[in-house]
Amino acid sequence: MEISGPAFFIGKGDDSLISFGSGQPDMPPPVEAFDILKTYTGFKYGPVQGEEPLRAALAEKYAGSTADDFVITNGASEAIDIVLRAISKEGGTVLLPRPYYYSYPFNVRYAGMTPVYYDLVDGKIDFDIFAQVLDEATAVVINSPSNPTGTVQNVDTLKKIEALCAERGVWVISDEVYKDIIYVRENYLIQGPKVVTINSFSKTYAMCGLRVGYVYTQNKELVEKIVEMRTHTAMNTSIVGQMMALAALSSPASYIAHNLEVWKARRDMMVSGMRELGLDLWEPEGAFYVLPKFEDSGRTVAELYEKHRVITYDGAWFGAPGRVRFSYALDASKIIEGLSRLKEFLTEK
Amino acid sequence: MEISGPAFFIGKGDDSLISFGSGQPDMPPPVEAFDILKTYTGFKYGPVQGEEPLRAALAEKYAGSTADDFVITNGASEAIDIVLRAISKEGGTVLLPRPYYYSYPFNVRYAGMTPVYYDLVDGKIDFDIFAQVLDEATAVVINSPSNPTGTVQNVDTLKKIEALCAERGVWVISDEVYKDIIYVRENYLIQGPKVVTINSFSKTYAMCGLRVGYVYTQNKELVEKIVEMRTHTAMNTSIVGQMMALAALSSPASYIAHNLEVWKARRDMMVSGMRELGLDLWEPEGAFYVLPKFEDSGRTVAELYEKHRVITYDGAWFGAPGRVRFSYALDASKIIEGLSRLKEFLTEK
Repeated sequence: MEISGPAFFIGKGDDSLISFGSGQPDMPPPVEAFDILKTYTGFKYGPVQGEEPLRAALAEKYAGSTADDFVITNGASEAIDIVLRAISKEGGTVLLPRPYYYSYPFNVRYAGMTPVYYDLVDGKIDFDIFAQVLDEATAVVINSPSNPTGTVQNVDTLKKIEALCAERGVWVISDEVYKDIIYVRENYLIQGPKVVTINSFSKTYAMCGLRVGYVYTQNKELVEKIVEMRTHTAMNTSIVGQMMALAALSSPASYIAHNLEVWKARRDMMVSGMRELGLDLWEPEGAFYVLPKFEDSGRTVAELYEKHRVITYDGAWFGAPGRVRFSYALDASKIIEGLSRLKEFLTEK
Repeated sequence: MEISGPAFFIGKGDDSLISFGSGQPDMPPPVEAFDILKTYTGFKYGPVQGEEPLRAALAEKYAGSTADDFVITNGASEAIDIVLRAISKEGGTVLLPRPYYYSYPFNVRYAGMTPVYYDLVDGKIDFDIFAQVLDEATAVVINSPSNPTGTVQNVDTLKKIEALCAERGVWVISDEVYKDIIYVRENYLIQGPKVVTINSFSKTYAMCGLRVGYVYTQNKELVEKIVEMRTHTAMNTSIVGQMMALAALSSPASYIAHNLEVWKARRDMMVSGMRELGLDLWEPEGAFYVLPKFEDSGRTVAELYEKHRVITYDGAWFGAPGRVRFSYALDASKIIEGLSRLKEFLTEK
């Protein structure tokens, strides 16, 4: 059996399966998000840039920002797509860390540019390698915490990248959708006149299916360009989703803090369980993925699925053949069962 | 004062203004759409192609279709954008009728192709002109009923276009978002292996801000290509919006019929009012726009706004300088007041 990509597993959710596949939180959004629906009656177009109260609430979370610096999008996916389209230029290249989130190379090509890769060293950016390959790139994409590696980049490295890209006039697209799921330190927000922060309500507030993300940038020309483009390609992001997002922002800080504790406990369970099984892995510092080594990752994913009813994602889809991505966005009892099936798989080999 | 485009008027909605600007229904969606919100709890990713029950319900409205032939999008805007991106080819051209919906030229260029125009004759497609300019076009866009002309194309013409494009292997992108607002006949659905129907819940069900549209095509490769692209550029359309759309489809037929009566009454009021003022116009056969002639359309729009507090859109934005677009998506009492202000403007000249 050949499993070609994540799409293969969509809709395969029967109870006999343990899924370490999809990267979506299983814990629900804050109750505040659903409460607003009970009396919701809006139906008219909203501003293409996004509802002002939502952008104002976001501005409070980003020091030195104003509501004008944000564009609300259909999740982080559209945010990345529209930013790349807006900055695209003929013959442009975009520098991607490898392993990478599987959509990045597609996004770059769809925007008419060419992806250029550099390898992470033990899941980390080696600044010297980065500086060597930066060359004439139009943009670089940074993803910390990273899907699929689970690593968080060193603040020193991020600062050096920030400075070098500013000096060279290179766009930095910083995908920080996992910024509220970091186990090792606070998030470091990359900043500057050609910096674009991508974020969403999908991971922090478990609102994946509601598709509310955003672009934050202090580059006014880019905001204008994106709004102009979206007038023709999307119009406003679903107004009801935006109101749910605004309500989610008003939830108590304990919502995020509690979820982080849950993620951390699961992370510890995954790491200790996998180490007991002798797997070679990077300890996740953020997000909810672990990417252990497997000799033949394609066969591993196929066998785990067919013989053991366990869904995992082939590292090859993320530019990391020889590794397999396990998402731990599932209940502790399922993690235990999944690790036990993984043990069977490893024992049989 | 220079008014550069529709975006100028966004957010300008104080009570002293009469707006013939925005093309969004003022009558609310069916109550069914809001009813489902009271108990709504979904938050997870859905299929990128769209919720199966919604696609199945749509299939019931299109003879000979199945749920697999639909992709649910963020409104018709994303539908057009993603279809053009999916069929784009280097050096490709897309044939557009002029006057055109103002986004089309942008959509074509954003997809890396070049728009080619042909002029409508009294708001109608002249098939001989169409056939002459078709040339090596990659695609043609048909928009009947049309925004901004309010005209409906002759069924004979549509059938000839259908046949010629099939023969030449040219994509037909048929934007039928106003198909449920036709005063003169039933809608004629263009069909074929390279036909793509664009539609949405925005006009029929007054759900503009909720952003639910769809692509319908019997071309399986195109469906696959769009789903693959959307996996990276959008993911699923907002699941709550899709459930509202599904509920809207379950509303009684009287919802659409009643609205059509209202549109028709407003149309009659606009046409007779404008003719009394001596304006030269095409009688709207569908949608809710009328596009009368004005010598200097740019100055007319500016003066109507500044001196008479009336919002209208310059025909030039739609490829029709010398005409002004009036949307009649507003209450009869406001239409009367608006026509009275228009009379003042014309008298002063």
